[in-house]
Amino acid sequence: MPAPKPSELAFIRFVSVENMMRLVHSIGVETVLKDLARYLEDDFRRWDLFDKTPRVAAHSEDGVIELMPTSDGVSYGFKYVNGHPKNTKSGLQTVTAFGLLARVDTGYPELLTEMTLLTALRTAATSAMVARHLAPKGATTMAMIGNGAQSEFQALAMRAICGIDRLRLYDIDPAATAKLVRNLSGLGFDLTACKTAQEAIEGAQVITTCTADKQYATILTDNMVGAGVHINAIGGDCPGKTELHGDILRRSDVFVEYTPQTRIEGEIQQMPADFSVTEMWQVIAGAAPGRTSDRQITLFDGVGFAIEDFSALRYVRDRLEGTGFFQSLDIIADPDDPRDLFGMLTRAGASSAGMQREGATL
Amino acid sequence: MPAPKPSELAFIRFVSVENMMRLVHSIGVETVLKDLARYLEDDFRRWDLFDKTPRVAAHSEDGVIELMPTSDGVSYGFKYVNGHPKNTKSGLQTVTAFGLLARVDTGYPELLTEMTLLTALRTAATSAMVARHLAPKGATTMAMIGNGAQSEFQALAMRAICGIDRLRLYDIDPAATAKLVRNLSGLGFDLTACKTAQEAIEGAQVITTCTADKQYATILTDNMVGAGVHINAIGGDCPGKTELHGDILRRSDVFVEYTPQTRIEGEIQQMPADFSVTEMWQVIAGAAPGRTSDRQITLFDGVGFAIEDFSALRYVRDRLEGTGFFQSLDIIADPDDPRDLFGMLTRAGASSAGMQREGATL
Repeated sequence: MPAPKPSELAFIRFVSVENMMRLVHSIGVETVLKDLARYLEDDFRRWDLFDKTPRVAAHSEDGVIELMPTSDGVSYGFKYVNGHPKNTKSGLQTVTAFGLLARVDTGYPELLTEMTLLTALRTAATSAMVARHLAPKGATTMAMIGNGAQSEFQALAMRAICGIDRLRLYDIDPAATAKLVRNLSGLGFDLTACKTAQEAIEGAQVITTCTADKQYATILTDNMVGAGVHINAIGGDCPGKTELHGDILRRSDVFVEYTPQTRIEGEIQQMPADFSVTEMWQVIAGAAPGRTSDRQITLFDGVGFAIEDFSALRYVRDRLEGTGFFQSLDIIADPDDPRDLFGMLTRAGASSAGMQREGATL
Repeated sequence: MPAPKPSELAFIRFVSVENMMRLVHSIGVETVLKDLARYLEDDFRRWDLFDKTPRVAAHSEDGVIELMPTSDGVSYGFKYVNGHPKNTKSGLQTVTAFGLLARVDTGYPELLTEMTLLTALRTAATSAMVARHLAPKGATTMAMIGNGAQSEFQALAMRAICGIDRLRLYDIDPAATAKLVRNLSGLGFDLTACKTAQEAIEGAQVITTCTADKQYATILTDNMVGAGVHINAIGGDCPGKTELHGDILRRSDVFVEYTPQTRIEGEIQQMPADFSVTEMWQVIAGAAPGRTSDRQITLFDGVGFAIEDFSALRYVRDRLEGTGFFQSLDIIADPDDPRDLFGMLTRAGASSAGMQREGATL
């Protein structure tokens, strides 16, 4: 007797790191970033519709493990993500992530995917989508302070979505800047490696801060920042981790993803609880102004929100159709009679016992 | 140039439904249930140590999707589980589940597994582990009211762990009872199919109620229950779903897993907020009495708690060692240089472009 075959319903699509890379290359990195920005903008526009549960965090001495769920009423998604600053020392990633998309009507999972790469892509697409609304018109130059794992993605997204192709680079570790220059060489950017943060922001209309230390740092001080710039502050994303001097926040109009989360995790954790911010979805939906003058400093205090992962999961699900860039995982027990889970188990046992008697391997 | 191979660190073990069935059969179902009861008892004994986050639920008209995380400081686990009562009508499972175990020190996932079968096993092992502490000594007979997907597992666990081998069966649907009789025939049980719940509980020292309707039902009324029995009430496990008349609860000593959750989901949702209960871990740790007299009615108001899933995940992880009952999933992006995620992506692209030029398939 052959082993009972699981039905179609028992399978979900799994996108490994390798398949994610294949998928991204088959589409093209910059096209993926532009597509993601479109998916993100669609979801920001219908922001009200989403379940906005705060992340569920398990803290330890070494780091944090978080679950970030959300739902639009049709699909349900969550991301598992860890943050372990010391991992780098033992050759491990500081942040790893995977995500899942399920159907709300049946509760059945439909997609499981790596999200380390996907998060890097969606973070960059979010920054650029926001900059498209807030950066001064005609911006061509970005200072990039912090040249780690996220920096290349930021650069490509800012060019693909905002037309910024001149980059001024600074990192406390020159090796990080050298890596960034190496990775972006030959891709048509105008690259300048700088010796200080101050030097990097000279002439830049957009300033991206993206450093990794989990501590109150002051990457930018007030006197460094001139009128009219857009600051894309994405490195401060947990309690105790900020990058900007409070005075910069006071001079800026601050835009956030989801206020309750950003007050805990973002740059504005330094400010009083009633410090005025605008949620970015309101700008995109036309319910609140974005940039209103040439002299205004706009500041995106980005920490990453579950809805952005949801957009990214939707995108991957949709783009997988017709490709072979996934494996099928038999993760759902699917007996012929839903009340007969035990029968499914015993029949599988009888069948594998039969196979063993016939000398077949399991 | 060959595609860069992901390192060992990039992989987690995945146990499909098929591999879970193979693993269970290779060990033997009753041995698995006994082993699980031991893992459960170990974790109940160190209950205080665990993070006890409430489940994170996303409700919709059709059902609920929940994440149930917990951690003992060394490992972190969570279960994804849905509950969609209408699924049965379209040939789908009402409840499906999968789970994950990760290392707290690095945040790296180590095990992903189906948990539909595993939850059925851990639920039965929990019931029997509790009954071993609370059921009257020398109990031989169990009434089983509700003969659905969980019933066979309950029967096997109660025999393996408590020595109960006489079963009196009742379900409003005689076909469910017929299925249960068919599945347990030839396994050495003394089986009696009954026409009413009243008839089923005659002479039983243990009464298991395990029905599936999501509504306030009264499977047992007060006058049906005699002195000295142990009631294992596991069917009422969400708001609006109970099985027992309130008068039975008032006559019983009620034992629960985790009081805040059980007051919302369990039988005691019918009772005032200060209704007295004992947490089962206290009994197991010797900090509270279990059964104290022959006439006492003990009642386990079981709803299922994250720590039980954690025990089950630990067990599977440990028992996988040295078997081939898993697949390796490449779910963690693992660049040689953790800061060079983009370099990993471009090198993979160069490599796959090379493969395409050589006409190799992806």
